[in-house]
Amino acid sequence: MNQTTVGVIGAGRIGKMHTENLVHAVPEAFVKAVASPHLDEDWAESLSIPVRSIDNAVVLDDPEIEAVVITASSGRHAELIRQAAAAGKHVFCEKPVAFEPDTIEEVVQAARKAGIKLQVGFNRRSDPSLLDLMEAVRSGQIGDVHTIRVTNRDPKAPPIDFVKRSGGLFFDFVIHDFDTVRFLSGSEIVEVYAVGGVLVDPAIGAAGDIDTAVVTLRLANGALAVIDNSRQAVYGYDQRFEVFGSAGSVAVDNTTPSTRVVSTTGGVVRRTPHDGFVSRYREAFIAELRTFLGAVRGEGPVAADAEDALAAVRAAVAARESFQQQRPVRLDAAASAAKGETVS
Amino acid sequence: MNQTTVGVIGAGRIGKMHTENLVHAVPEAFVKAVASPHLDEDWAESLSIPVRSIDNAVVLDDPEIEAVVITASSGRHAELIRQAAAAGKHVFCEKPVAFEPDTIEEVVQAARKAGIKLQVGFNRRSDPSLLDLMEAVRSGQIGDVHTIRVTNRDPKAPPIDFVKRSGGLFFDFVIHDFDTVRFLSGSEIVEVYAVGGVLVDPAIGAAGDIDTAVVTLRLANGALAVIDNSRQAVYGYDQRFEVFGSAGSVAVDNTTPSTRVVSTTGGVVRRTPHDGFVSRYREAFIAELRTFLGAVRGEGPVAADAEDALAAVRAAVAARESFQQQRPVRLDAAASAAKGETVS
Amino acid sequence: MNQTTVGVIGAGRIGKMHTENLVHAVPEAFVKAVASPHLDEDWAESLSIPVRSIDNAVVLDDPEIEAVVITASSGRHAELIRQAAAAGKHVFCEKPVAFEPDTIEEVVQAARKAGIKLQVGFNRRSDPSLLDLMEAVRSGQIGDVHTIRVTNRDPKAPPIDFVKRSGGLFFDFVIHDFDTVRFLSGSEIVEVYAVGGVLVDPAIGAAGDIDTAVVTLRLANGALAVIDNSRQAVYGYDQRFEVFGSAGSVAVDNTTPSTRVVSTTGGVVRRTPHDGFVSRYREAFIAELRTFLGAVRGEGPVAADAEDALAAVRAAVAARESFQQQRPVRLDAAASAAKGETVS
Amino acid sequence: MNQTTVGVIGAGRIGKMHTENLVHAVPEAFVKAVASPHLDEDWAESLSIPVRSIDNAVVLDDPEIEAVVITASSGRHAELIRQAAAAGKHVFCEKPVAFEPDTIEEVVQAARKAGIKLQVGFNRRSDPSLLDLMEAVRSGQIGDVHTIRVTNRDPKAPPIDFVKRSGGLFFDFVIHDFDTVRFLSGSEIVEVYAVGGVLVDPAIGAAGDIDTAVVTLRLANGALAVIDNSRQAVYGYDQRFEVFGSAGSVAVDNTTPSTRVVSTTGGVVRRTPHDGFVSRYREAFIAELRTFLGAVRGEGPVAADAEDALAAVRAAVAARESFQQQRPVRLDAAASAAKGETVS
Repeated sequence: MNQTTVGVIGAGRIGKMHTENLVHAVPEAFVKAVASPHLDEDWAESLSIPVRSIDNAVVLDDPEIEAVVITASSGRHAELIRQAAAAGKHVFCEKPVAFEPDTIEEVVQAARKAGIKLQVGFNRRSDPSLLDLMEAVRSGQIGDVHTIRVTNRDPKAPPIDFVKRSGGLFFDFVIHDFDTVRFLSGSEIVEVYAVGGVLVDPAIGAAGDIDTAVVTLRLANGALAVIDNSRQAVYGYDQRFEVFGSAGSVAVDNTTPSTRVVSTTGGVVRRTPHDGFVSRYREAFIAELRTFLGAVRGEGPVAADAEDALAAVRAAVAARESFQQQRPVRLDAAASAAKGETVS
Repeated sequence: MNQTTVGVIGAGRIGKMHTENLVHAVPEAFVKAVASPHLDEDWAESLSIPVRSIDNAVVLDDPEIEAVVITASSGRHAELIRQAAAAGKHVFCEKPVAFEPDTIEEVVQAARKAGIKLQVGFNRRSDPSLLDLMEAVRSGQIGDVHTIRVTNRDPKAPPIDFVKRSGGLFFDFVIHDFDTVRFLSGSEIVEVYAVGGVLVDPAIGAAGDIDTAVVTLRLANGALAVIDNSRQAVYGYDQRFEVFGSAGSVAVDNTTPSTRVVSTTGGVVRRTPHDGFVSRYREAFIAELRTFLGAVRGEGPVAADAEDALAAVRAAVAARESFQQQRPVRLDAAASAAKGETVS
Repeated sequence: MNQTTVGVIGAGRIGKMHTENLVHAVPEAFVKAVASPHLDEDWAESLSIPVRSIDNAVVLDDPEIEAVVITASSGRHAELIRQAAAAGKHVFCEKPVAFEPDTIEEVVQAARKAGIKLQVGFNRRSDPSLLDLMEAVRSGQIGDVHTIRVTNRDPKAPPIDFVKRSGGLFFDFVIHDFDTVRFLSGSEIVEVYAVGGVLVDPAIGAAGDIDTAVVTLRLANGALAVIDNSRQAVYGYDQRFEVFGSAGSVAVDNTTPSTRVVSTTGGVVRRTPHDGFVSRYREAFIAELRTFLGAVRGEGPVAADAEDALAAVRAAVAARESFQQQRPVRLDAAASAAKGETVS
Repeated sequence: MNQTTVGVIGAGRIGKMHTENLVHAVPEAFVKAVASPHLDEDWAESLSIPVRSIDNAVVLDDPEIEAVVITASSGRHAELIRQAAAAGKHVFCEKPVAFEPDTIEEVVQAARKAGIKLQVGFNRRSDPSLLDLMEAVRSGQIGDVHTIRVTNRDPKAPPIDFVKRSGGLFFDFVIHDFDTVRFLSGSEIVEVYAVGGVLVDPAIGAAGDIDTAVVTLRLANGALAVIDNSRQAVYGYDQRFEVFGSAGSVAVDNTTPSTRVVSTTGGVVRRTPHDGFVSRYREAFIAELRTFLGAVRGEGPVAADAEDALAAVRAAVAARESFQQQRPVRLDAAASAAKGETVS
């Protein structure tokens, strides 16, 4: 197979996962170089990656490298995309591209100008079950979309250090749901109302964030959506989606590591859902890289682009404002407010 | 068995169902009389009900009748309760008691003064699956309650005539969900935010109502709740409930008339949910009457009282206001507004 | 409603259940008399049954009584059917009619001669889920029937006293499955192979019976069937059925008292199945009586007749022989052997 | 990672699957050579396998190759294992090792003498769901094993050419179930009774085989097992397993490519099971290779060895005899009969 030469920037937990997927499960990729400030040399060598460095230049300056996977710390994503774009390299970037809509808009411009493909890591768009759900929606089986329900609950509250630099629940966690609602509805979010609280861990509150939320969305096509979130569902990573319409409903339930069912006097017991996004979305993480490399080869569009990142962040900005001001917020108003303009 | 002598006022569709349940499935009851303006004589005779009349007096004035089941048209409920209370009879009344909080408060006073038992037809409180869910909540299995989710969708939009006199989606339909959230959380609703639209049938909009809604609730104990509604889920009566907490989650899924599963090339096909509340809540409708008669005999409390009706209507008032004004509404504010007072 | 006057003979556990169903849930019946050797007077009075006696004559000699429900001890069923037939009364008889095929044949003749309706208590034929399964088979959705699977497991091994007079596992318990296979396949059993053992309780072995069995059946239409049985499934009454065919499969799973699902760190826990036949087949027990009374009024056939009882007992005879001789047994051979004839 | 150098002999459909798994999903392996009579050169090159030939010698004579994966045509398995053993190479061999117990015994001896690891491709022993089921059995959650149920149905009847050289249903298909019963019970099969027929396709009968079977097994520990098989379940690859015991039951249901559920007026529709063993057991096929390579490195036992292959074939021999003679067959008797000895 004619492989695309790839470089990886950032090899923390997520970076390692993407790199291992590229090496083991993405035959279209040849990973030539990995750069990371605290690079795990043994790990990189075990994957037979030829070039290993703490210097991003080994990726950005190598003319053989056609595509860059950016999984550095979130705050550096936008700058690294700009650098890669300037070097004429296609980019797969983990979310978030940035927390500020303006920054993302600049990235969009830079990518457009450089003529590169830019895919954002909204992994759910590549999940087999969600794609199957979408097939039912697109085929018209459920008619016009009326209501979308998303349940997104993490199995365990993150460390407070992470909470502090995460951008907050809406930007770090609910952002996936904003994108999912856009993906499932094929429509834009026009208004957001967010309520939330600190019910899981007071330390999250002390860090200035919330851990529980319910977000209601109005979409441009008149449909409604509702998202419920928690940082901690002790029984596992709870990922459920439903699109309800005029001719029916289509839903995706949790997946489990095994279909085992034990029946005893205590009950009929199934396995709890997966323990996190790595196992739940394993196939999606591989599929999104293959879609990206397909786009690089001109075989189709990227799974999610910077415009999608922008739309999701705008919804997060509105959700934050809604939560703080305890009122529904329109996205155009939120966009204006974020730019410092007066909102009537 | 020592039976309680019962009279029924109102024998339309719901009245007939309750009466048949009393005769066939509630051994504690002897139905002596039924009164209804357009009484179906053949039906009443087939049930061997001795006294049949278009005049409510045969129920209200009969000293042998200890308890009255009021299933007349909604607008007459409050007045009939007052009359029955004045006659010293215990009352089971279908919801709604009334659409105005003040009227319900008057009913509460009248019942209290007369020293009668008054139960309201919030049938879900007597549903075996919901009671089983509650058992899990009360036993502490799921820890502190964080989020409640209710999906309530009717199988078929009602006739426009019904829509016009129904009191509107929040008062006729979502009212059950407001009560359910109070029941499941054991806490009071303090704030309501409602969005909705006319997505099922434009004629419902023309009649001044909506057919689709998402309602977010804040509860006194800090928990959140979200309700999604539709007047028409073509696949059946969709009734799902989930209480999520610090130690887990408990849910009740739809029930079906049969557990049949057919596997063919077209899919693995289960039966759709029940086709309406009569079949879905059959056991609940019987159980609520038995609970009421048990309360009449002093064996326990009623399943839902007029205070519960009042709380649910107050939430409906707030939801209507929230929908109209496009902002969250606090229940005390809604109560004040409903009384014509100024809300700051 | 024009009611059929019914008498009950035998008011032990099952007799009481049928009588209560007749009184509370079968509007077509008026229970005029109940006779039982150790009659519970208080119970009979609480049901307002006018005639209560230890003498069967109050039922058999009352010209007003049109139909008799026989739920006396198993050994007396055949004789009571003959007496009722002689009195010109229609008969609903609990299974077993008898343990010997010849006796059942005599009963068949007696009923035919008397021109009465005779229904046998194969309750599963009236179960909503099994009827729904049959509807899929009959409609051709699964094509030609290839294989039938039945799992029949009781929640708790019966008392040894019962085991001793039960007729043995094949006659007391698997007999329902023999009938079910005939019902589901619409074909006759032609060969039986039975293996089994004492795995639940050695006392059952000491009483000359087994508690676990797997029975393979060949049917006249070429289909195969397999039944697995246990006297004790600690998690509940396990009743599962599957018909597999050329165009698909249709199955009925266990039902549960509630659809509750609790998700905690320990698993995703559903309720165990019902705790016995009374709760699992509640609707079937009522429906079979209504079908019987419908047949009495000429509105349709009985749900299962004495020929069905005969066929099931013949299969049980063959199963016992197969188990004892450790070889497959053809039903015609078993029938001959049971008559003392030589089988080549 | 220190990789084990592997050679593959036989690159038909299954051989290609194993090779691709070795290259893409088994980091412990380096596939140096592939030999196959009709080798697909483009395919082998796309996997970057250095040595590609139609001559097995490139695998068997290469001193660098430590382990051989044998996926040649079934008739050549035993001879190839002997050759690989003689060359001192560890062997993973697809089932069947051979159709005759004696041949397998010779292979067992040859492997033992050579001191090599020999693993047989009973893939289910490496399936996550079945391993999870086993964990419940071994932990004692379900108590003593009483009954095992296996449903094994292929989605589509194989081509008649394949049927003719397959060894027949019991040797080609049910052999997996014989092994599964041994694996799940931890006990040996002592008696087999098999019934079957040609219900799917008359051409299968014309080729001297059957397409539908029910097999009952008695195990050494007193437990019973029942297997039902079909060559064609039009709704997909039906793989269900249940172990029932004194303290409960544990089961594994079918898996599906997606958890999608579509609810419309036509029903609540889930996806059909996987379309064949490649997708259903994808994880198992990878895991079994990793277990084999772990055993080669001395990290643990193989997942299934030649003794397991022998036991399964002995059960198949007994099943064939049982089916032909229409009687239960003991395995020692079958073994004796297969050797031409007299069985009393």
